[in-house]
Amino acid sequence: MKISIGKKTILFTHPVLIIGSYDMDFNPDIAAVAWGGICCSEPPSVAISLRKSRLTYENIMLNKAFTVNIPSREQVGSADYSGVYSGRDEDKFAATGLTPVNSGIVSAPYIKEYPLSMLCKLSHTIEIGIHTQFIGEILDVLVNDDILNEEGLPDISKARPIIYDSVSRSYFGIDEMISKAYIRVKK
Amino acid sequence: MKISIGKKTILFTHPVLIIGSYDMDFNPDIAAVAWGGICCSEPPSVAISLRKSRLTYENIMLNKAFTVNIPSREQVGSADYSGVYSGRDEDKFAATGLTPVNSGIVSAPYIKEYPLSMLCKLSHTIEIGIHTQFIGEILDVLVNDDILNEEGLPDISKARPIIYDSVSRSYFGIDEMISKAYIRVKK
Repeated sequence: MKISIGKKTILFTHPVLIIGSYDMDFNPDIAAVAWGGICCSEPPSVAISLRKSRLTYENIMLNKAFTVNIPSREQVGSADYSGVYSGRDEDKFAATGLTPVNSGIVSAPYIKEYPLSMLCKLSHTIEIGIHTQFIGEILDVLVNDDILNEEGLPDISKARPIIYDSVSRSYFGIDEMISKAYIRVKK
Repeated sequence: MKISIGKKTILFTHPVLIIGSYDMDFNPDIAAVAWGGICCSEPPSVAISLRKSRLTYENIMLNKAFTVNIPSREQVGSADYSGVYSGRDEDKFAATGLTPVNSGIVSAPYIKEYPLSMLCKLSHTIEIGIHTQFIGEILDVLVNDDILNEEGLPDISKARPIIYDSVSRSYFGIDEMISKAYIRVKK
């Protein structure tokens, strides 16, 4: 039986996305966002949502660019840290020991150590409510060579990404493959 | 070392979201969407992206409403099926054995058997490229009572959701909890 639990933002599952941006003095910053994901195949685009109070909001409005970085299971500590403190108070790259790299393609730093980074140019800004949604066109995807499969694409079982559960406020790993997709075809 | 793999929509991880809608004759339909997720906390809102060619696109434009339904691991077959065929050609509720329920709150059916359903009223329509993003305000969340935790909220370990990997075109399960969030605080 279905029970009504009211207006809530409970959905399974949320990705863990760490946003890279520069402030007005070109200091690199990273910050976890609660909400985001791919939103268009062509042009390849990713959406992230931010509150106006956050430094990352200010930085994206300034540079019209950001990076989306995906941590592996072993990097949950730095990913979590990036969502607790503000870049207004400290250098989070220094605090986490992560390395900012200037992509040269967009005015935003990516995280050297994380297995996958997307370089994004701001294409849309949508005011929804307490969150503003930024849509970025993905100009390039950078992948650590040790997670590539035989076709030169990132292998999820090597990347070992994590997901976030907003109910238990916890991170979870990815289990084994359950099934291929697009296989339910009529005989 | 980071390798450039070009403009691609590769992000870990994507949720598996099955959209419920009515056609112009109030026939209920379900369809998997590739891209989507929560996009705002207040008003609670969820974003999904659809190509204009899909019946679900037409149905949402007509009714200004949709439901977002989350399958459990055991329901991967019907979830996958809903993304392979079109509701223009057949009744996918009948084909999968799933039961449509009229919520009474929005003009869209939800899936009785899936553990979690969100009832959404269309609030924004954003043209990005080949995909249109629909943002829906979440008017209610319905949860099967057997996945509730002690606080009356959905328990991810009972819901047993799956994620989609667009590289291997496969579904994966969720593993054990790795870490609580917001715990990296300075002493």
